[in-house]
Amino acid sequence: MLPTRLSLADKIPDAVFCMALIVQKYGGTSVGNTDRIKNVAKRVAEYRSRGDQVVVVVSAMSGVTDGLIKLAKDIAPLPSEREMDMLLATGEQQTIALTAIALHTLGVPAISMTGAQAGIVTDGVHTKAKIHNISPRQVHDYLSEGKVVIVAGFQGETPEGQITTLGRGGSDLTAIALAAALKADLCQIYTDVDGVYTTDPRIVPNAKKLQEISYDEMLELASLGAKVMQSRSVEFAKKFGVVFEVRSSLNDNPGTIVKEETKSMEGVVVRGVAFDKNQAKVTIVGVPDKPGVAAKIFKALGDATVNVDMIIQNISHGTSSPATDISFTVDKPDLLKAQNVIDGLKSEVGIKQIITSEKIGKVSIVGVGMKSHTGVAGKLFETLANEGINIDMISTSEIKISVVIDLAMGEQAVKAVHAAFIG
Amino acid sequence: MLPTRLSLADKIPDAVFCMALIVQKYGGTSVGNTDRIKNVAKRVAEYRSRGDQVVVVVSAMSGVTDGLIKLAKDIAPLPSEREMDMLLATGEQQTIALTAIALHTLGVPAISMTGAQAGIVTDGVHTKAKIHNISPRQVHDYLSEGKVVIVAGFQGETPEGQITTLGRGGSDLTAIALAAALKADLCQIYTDVDGVYTTDPRIVPNAKKLQEISYDEMLELASLGAKVMQSRSVEFAKKFGVVFEVRSSLNDNPGTIVKEETKSMEGVVVRGVAFDKNQAKVTIVGVPDKPGVAAKIFKALGDATVNVDMIIQNISHGTSSPATDISFTVDKPDLLKAQNVIDGLKSEVGIKQIITSEKIGKVSIVGVGMKSHTGVAGKLFETLANEGINIDMISTSEIKISVVIDLAMGEQAVKAVHAAFIG
Repeated sequence: MLPTRLSLADKIPDAVFCMALIVQKYGGTSVGNTDRIKNVAKRVAEYRSRGDQVVVVVSAMSGVTDGLIKLAKDIAPLPSEREMDMLLATGEQQTIALTAIALHTLGVPAISMTGAQAGIVTDGVHTKAKIHNISPRQVHDYLSEGKVVIVAGFQGETPEGQITTLGRGGSDLTAIALAAALKADLCQIYTDVDGVYTTDPRIVPNAKKLQEISYDEMLELASLGAKVMQSRSVEFAKKFGVVFEVRSSLNDNPGTIVKEETKSMEGVVVRGVAFDKNQAKVTIVGVPDKPGVAAKIFKALGDATVNVDMIIQNISHGTSSPATDISFTVDKPDLLKAQNVIDGLKSEVGIKQIITSEKIGKVSIVGVGMKSHTGVAGKLFETLANEGINIDMISTSEIKISVVIDLAMGEQAVKAVHAAFIG
Repeated sequence: MLPTRLSLADKIPDAVFCMALIVQKYGGTSVGNTDRIKNVAKRVAEYRSRGDQVVVVVSAMSGVTDGLIKLAKDIAPLPSEREMDMLLATGEQQTIALTAIALHTLGVPAISMTGAQAGIVTDGVHTKAKIHNISPRQVHDYLSEGKVVIVAGFQGETPEGQITTLGRGGSDLTAIALAAALKADLCQIYTDVDGVYTTDPRIVPNAKKLQEISYDEMLELASLGAKVMQSRSVEFAKKFGVVFEVRSSLNDNPGTIVKEETKSMEGVVVRGVAFDKNQAKVTIVGVPDKPGVAAKIFKALGDATVNVDMIIQNISHGTSSPATDISFTVDKPDLLKAQNVIDGLKSEVGIKQIITSEKIGKVSIVGVGMKSHTGVAGKLFETLANEGINIDMISTSEIKISVVIDLAMGEQAVKAVHAAFIG
C-alpha cells in the first residue's frame, strides 16, 4: 500500500488500520443533496480501497422527513403513528438507493438494504420503537461478497413485518446497534461538527476538541444540552461496549472517540463544560411540610409527561404551620404544562403561590476524574463568585456538578469555568 | 338502506350492489396532492358506508417518481435497476400512508401495506418484474377486521425479499392481480378520463363513452394508441377473468366495464376507432426476392429491440433480377435505430435504397362483431375513398382493420370512419 493512500487511514486508530469492519453513519446534512451523497461515496470508497469492509448507515436527506411530516399534517393534525412510520421510512430508503448508485459510479460494488432487510427487529411501539435484536446474516453475506452494504437508518420491522421507526437520533442507534451485532472494529458517526468539544466553541473560541471521552461523560454532556447525540444511542453503545468516533463529514479531521472509561481518563478532572439555555424554573411557595406532598406533586407531573430535571427543596419558613418551598426545572416547552399541573393541585395540596422563570441557564462541569479528585465543587463556586455570579440551584452526580444561574450571566460563567478547569 | 345512500351505488352493476369486495386503483393524478388524496378517501368511505369491503391500490403522487428519477440521474446516467426499484418503490409507499391517514380522519379504519406486505411475489427482473403469485392472507385478515386495505401499486418482492417494481402501468397490474387473487366482485381503475370512448373526443366531439368493451377489443385499442391502459394489465385481466371498470376519479359518472366477450357484444360491428400518430414507416427498395432475406432483416431489428408493427411486402418490380420492396412501421422514437440496423445490412443483403417517413398515421377500427359481419373492410375503404384519402398500407386481424394513411389526412379519416360505423 502506497503512502499516498494513507490520507484517511493515518487518522484512525492503529488497531483498525487494515482489513477492519467499519460501520459509518452519515446524517441528513451529510447526504443533503446529490453532490453530498457523491462525497459520502468517495469517502466510503477510500476506506474500502484500503481493504476495509464498510457498512454505511444513512439518514433521510435533510428536509425530506420534514416535507413528509408536512404532507401528513396537511391531512390530519394527529396522524396515526403506524402510518407515520410507513411514510417516514421512505426517506432513508431513498438515501440508501442513491448512495449505492453513487458508489457504483466509482466502481465500488454496493447494495442497499432497508432496516427490515438488514435484520433490524424492533418492538411494535411505532415512531419510537426499541431494537429487540439484529439478525445480520444477509449483511454478512453481502460483505463477504465484497460489497459495501448501505443500511437505512432510523427504521426496523416488528417480528410480524410491520415497519417501525426508532424516533429522534434513530440513525445513530441503527449504526451503533449494527456495529454491536456485526462485532465491527469501529463505528464512525459522521456529522456536521468535528467531534465533541470541551465546550461550545461559539462561546469559548479556544474550546478544544476532545480526542476521547467516556460513555458516562458523553451521556452527561448529551443530557446537559450538548446535542451531539441522543443519550439513547450512547447508552446502547455503553451497554454493548461499542467504541465509536464522532467526526465531520465535511473534512478529514480525526474526531472524538467515545469508549469505556480508562484509568488514564481519570487524570482529567473536567472533560467538558455544558451550557443549557433550554430550562425553566418553577418554585412552589408554601408547600405543607408533611409526608407525601412532594410525591403527589411529582407523580402528577410525571403523569402529564413533564420531564423534571433538578429538584431542590428549600429550607422551611418560620410560619405558624410548617411549610417549605420546592423548586424544580423543566424543559422550557413543558413549562406551561407544568404550571397547569401544579395549578390543578393548588387547593388540594394547599399551595400558596407558584413562581416561574424562563430566564435561567444551567452550567455544568463533567468529568470522570471528579470521582477521585476533591475540591472540584469548591473551585467551581469560587470561580463563579469571583465573577459576581449568584448560584440559584445546585445538583451533583458522581461525575457532574450543575448550577442554575441567571440566564444573562450564562456565557460569562461558561467562559470563566472553562478557563478555570480546562484553560 | 336509504335511497339517499345510493348516489354511487346505483351507478355500478347490480351484482355488486351490497357487501361486495371491490378493488379500486387510483393513479398518480388522482392522488397528486393532499386535497386529492382526501377526495379519494371520501370516495372510498362512501363505498365502505354501503357495507362494501374495499382494497385501494395507489400510485405515487404525480411528479414524485419523476423527481426521484432525476435525483438518480444526477448521480449516474444509468443507475442500477435494483437500486432504482429500491428508490422508486418509496413513491407508492408514501401515498399508501397518506391515504390511510386521510381515511382515519373520516373515521374509517384503514391500514396501508407495501407490495411485499400484501404478498405480491414477483420474479427478480428489476424495473419490469412479473408477478409470480399473490398470497393475500394478510389482506384478507385486515378486511375481515373491517379495515380498508391500501396497497402500494407498481411494486412487489422476490421470494428472497428483494424489492421490485412492475414497470409502466404497474399499478393497474397490481389492482387487477389483487382483484384476481382476492376473487373481488369488481375492480375499478380510476383515472383522469371518464372511460373508454368510441374514439378520441378531441377529434370527434360526439364520440360516445362505451358502457362495455371486451378484453380483446380493449387490447387492440391499447396497442393502437388509445392509451387508457397498458396491454399487460388487460392481458392479465383476460387471463384471470377479472372484470374491471375504467372510470374517472374527478366525477361520479359510470365508466366502461371491460370483460369477456358476450354474444350481445357481437351485435356491434365496430366498437371504436383508434388513431395512432406515433408510427413511422420504413420502405426497403429492391430487396432480392429469395428465401431468408426477410428473416434476416426482421431478426436484426428484433435483436436491436426495435418493435415492428405492420409489415407489407409489395409486388416485385420487373427488373432483371427478381427484387421486391418491403415496408414496415415502427414507433417513431425507434426510427433512427431501425434505419441504422438496415444500413448495416445494406451490402450483405443487397438492398438498393431505404426510404423513411414520419408523416404517416394509422387509423384502425376494432370490434368483435367483425367476426360475424362481412363487408366491413369494403365499407372502410369506400369511406376513405369518398374522402379522397389514399391508403398506403393495410393490415387486419380477426377483430381489427388498420390502414396507414398520410398523417395530414388522419383526423379527417377518423371523423369519416367514426360517422360511417358509429354515428
